[in-house]
Amino acid sequence: MADKLTSQREDFSKWYNQIVQRAELADYSPVRGSMVIRPYGYSLWENVQAGLDRRFKATGHQNAYFPLFIPMSFMQKEKEHVEGFSPELAVVTHAGGELLEEPLVVRPTSETIIGHMYAQWIRSYRDLPILINCWNNVVRWELRTRLFLRTAEFLWQEGHTAHATAVEAEAETRRMLDVYADFAINDAAIPVIAGRKSESEKFAGAVRSYTIEAMMGDKKALQSGTSHFLGQNFAKAFEIKYLSKDNVQEYVWTTSWGLSARVIGGIIMVHGDDQGLQLPPKLAPVQAVVVPIFKNDAERSQVMPVIAALKQQLAEAVRVKVDERDETPGFKFNDWELRGVPLRLEVGPKDMAKGAVVLARRDLPGKEGKSYVPQARVIEAVQATLKSIQSDMLARATEFRDANVHEAKSWDEFKSIVEDGFARTWYCGDLKCEAEIKDETKATTRCIPLDQPGGSGKCVHCGKIGTEVVLYGRAY
Amino acid sequence: MADKLTSQREDFSKWYNQIVQRAELADYSPVRGSMVIRPYGYSLWENVQAGLDRRFKATGHQNAYFPLFIPMSFMQKEKEHVEGFSPELAVVTHAGGELLEEPLVVRPTSETIIGHMYAQWIRSYRDLPILINCWNNVVRWELRTRLFLRTAEFLWQEGHTAHATAVEAEAETRRMLDVYADFAINDAAIPVIAGRKSESEKFAGAVRSYTIEAMMGDKKALQSGTSHFLGQNFAKAFEIKYLSKDNVQEYVWTTSWGLSARVIGGIIMVHGDDQGLQLPPKLAPVQAVVVPIFKNDAERSQVMPVIAALKQQLAEAVRVKVDERDETPGFKFNDWELRGVPLRLEVGPKDMAKGAVVLARRDLPGKEGKSYVPQARVIEAVQATLKSIQSDMLARATEFRDANVHEAKSWDEFKSIVEDGFARTWYCGDLKCEAEIKDETKATTRCIPLDQPGGSGKCVHCGKIGTEVVLYGRAY
Repeated sequence: MADKLTSQREDFSKWYNQIVQRAELADYSPVRGSMVIRPYGYSLWENVQAGLDRRFKATGHQNAYFPLFIPMSFMQKEKEHVEGFSPELAVVTHAGGELLEEPLVVRPTSETIIGHMYAQWIRSYRDLPILINCWNNVVRWELRTRLFLRTAEFLWQEGHTAHATAVEAEAETRRMLDVYADFAINDAAIPVIAGRKSESEKFAGAVRSYTIEAMMGDKKALQSGTSHFLGQNFAKAFEIKYLSKDNVQEYVWTTSWGLSARVIGGIIMVHGDDQGLQLPPKLAPVQAVVVPIFKNDAERSQVMPVIAALKQQLAEAVRVKVDERDETPGFKFNDWELRGVPLRLEVGPKDMAKGAVVLARRDLPGKEGKSYVPQARVIEAVQATLKSIQSDMLARATEFRDANVHEAKSWDEFKSIVEDGFARTWYCGDLKCEAEIKDETKATTRCIPLDQPGGSGKCVHCGKIGTEVVLYGRAY
Repeated sequence: MADKLTSQREDFSKWYNQIVQRAELADYSPVRGSMVIRPYGYSLWENVQAGLDRRFKATGHQNAYFPLFIPMSFMQKEKEHVEGFSPELAVVTHAGGELLEEPLVVRPTSETIIGHMYAQWIRSYRDLPILINCWNNVVRWELRTRLFLRTAEFLWQEGHTAHATAVEAEAETRRMLDVYADFAINDAAIPVIAGRKSESEKFAGAVRSYTIEAMMGDKKALQSGTSHFLGQNFAKAFEIKYLSKDNVQEYVWTTSWGLSARVIGGIIMVHGDDQGLQLPPKLAPVQAVVVPIFKNDAERSQVMPVIAALKQQLAEAVRVKVDERDETPGFKFNDWELRGVPLRLEVGPKDMAKGAVVLARRDLPGKEGKSYVPQARVIEAVQATLKSIQSDMLARATEFRDANVHEAKSWDEFKSIVEDGFARTWYCGDLKCEAEIKDETKATTRCIPLDQPGGSGKCVHCGKIGTEVVLYGRAY
């Protein structure tokens, strides 16, 4: 075992990097800015995918696949889109031993090539809406990278829909924001704040962008999923038209929405502590680990058959693993705490004699999290405890977030709040004012929450009157 | 509806392209050699993935993700590997607005970058075996492309394992070949022939390659999955070593194995007919489609509630869809036949009056495939019929294959057999002889089947004695 984990208080960023590597979630790759997602991290991603995919399908979406390479000329068709993405593009210039006539961009997002295909598939109002999602990899060449949070290549899903009316497209944009929030809150136990992005923070090519914003353990913000109403911008750039019921050629209205493996970074930073990861039961690759306790071979042969029977039963109800490594129980306890497994079961001769099994919660260390359960009721107890852990993790994260979002009544107060939390203030909507705030405090508008108090008031910086409240914070 | 589908006999290749596009499995993309997988095709791929992923996990494998980009220098470390793949590489030379110091290859396969990571992760025999699989996209710049069968970018899985001994690695190579064969036969209803690749057909960098080979409806061969014993070739190129139990530094032994979305092309060409696709029930996105039959609104309001109840029941047992489009039953019948849905249910007032539902099998057109089932027993009947369809499809494909594999006793016979089937002959193992056969007949060695008769005999072309039988055929 390597040195002790750096504490969060000492150096949150170092703590994060250590956790990701020691828990074997991910590793640096030899390619600048790219990462390797190791089996434990990928298994977490598979559970994220399953939770989202189920929700996408329940709301009528289908998956599809579009090419990795996009002709450079496609990127240039939507003016704001190309401006936003140009600095980050990776470009294939040679293939099959020859210089390509037209360079190919490795997709940073797929609005353009999907727009091109939709233009061919959509003929009449009968073909609408098109509700498609893609699970794929994208590349955005970033200068400063961080495992999961910001890498040149990342895994995500991107949804792309086309509709006959603006109202329908806006409703879809909001529906998918709701899907993201529901997933974040109920599966990842992250109490995100849903809202609209300010003009300066919206997606390159969108009319309106929505976001779910989460507060990390260091009180910085993580944008955790975005949903964009694209208006007719891409429809006009790619000539996506349909024949309406009234026999008129109309441009469609499109949306796009994406959530990436970055959410794993969010799970780490919202729930982790100085002992390591804490994974929400709904997403944990291993929900319960069984650690055999014995001092000698005689005890071993007493304990192991009980554990084998227990595992078989448990495996039908939860994702369970038995740790049979040739290591001490203490080593195993630490190791599984580091890896964030929500629940540990200890089976030793003493407890067995009493017909009991020890349950130890990862989220409640020490005696508070321990309980003794009769062997006969272990499955119900494990299921019930996992349920409690899931809801307690959300409750704790919500409490933490609420304690660190403050209303800023003056500029001085604002500056001090964003040093260590999110500040609420009235939103002036002035791009220049927003830029000045960012320059001076490193805080950016995270979102204009959907949940608004009503009324109006002064922007804490420029003093102009706004009718909406905005959240500011320093962000990853 | 477009023109009538080209018949297989008239032009198999044209039939294939029409089917793929009309059934909305896939479409051409604006990027040379790349394809778009549409929702219906992708859903089929999702079912392929689920069938394989379940088998991979049951044999102890875990999924992970490695970078899309590979430094050019990595590709050059294994001599045969770079020779094999160099002509097909797509290369990123620019990123983030700058020329890269070292060009990056878009992965054609990931042995090299995974080898580099394994060298860092593996320290001792305790770290072995490593059993990892990846679901991803790869790029091999191909000159002649065909939807699903051969495209510049394709979706696949690639497994990469590392072992302490050659025996273990060889056993893994064969185990995964078995997994592929089991999937192909039992899920895709494709009676593949498992065997070893000849020296000239093996993977660039492998010691031995194994393959599952399928016979298409035009009697050509499709390589449908390969499993490679890589020996210590990549271990030596990437310095993947472990400390053995005897405290000695040893090179590991590695394997790799892959199966791609090309298998969808195989499903189309093995089972399809002049009416369109025929999908095996285990993989079909829609296993049963319900077509309402009514002549007027009165009948409609009689039929639809029965169908709604039926759908709810059926949805718990099978993947079912109700076709409520405003089209005639005849149109719908043709459309679902084209799309290869294995079973059609017809619900109309006449049958309802008798308390019956009509079941019509896609694989048995006309009266033979029709049955009348009491509404109360419809779920059992649907499940049982789907099971019969699955096994009948395999039986028919096996019969077809067996009728078109012939023993070649003379060179003239050989030439005539490979015009329209697979030829069996003794394997001389002479690369020059193999090349001559290919030049003269366009037939290549598909595999040296695992199932061997024993004994020895003459190569039909060069007359040299061989102790193994080999299969020759023209391949996709």
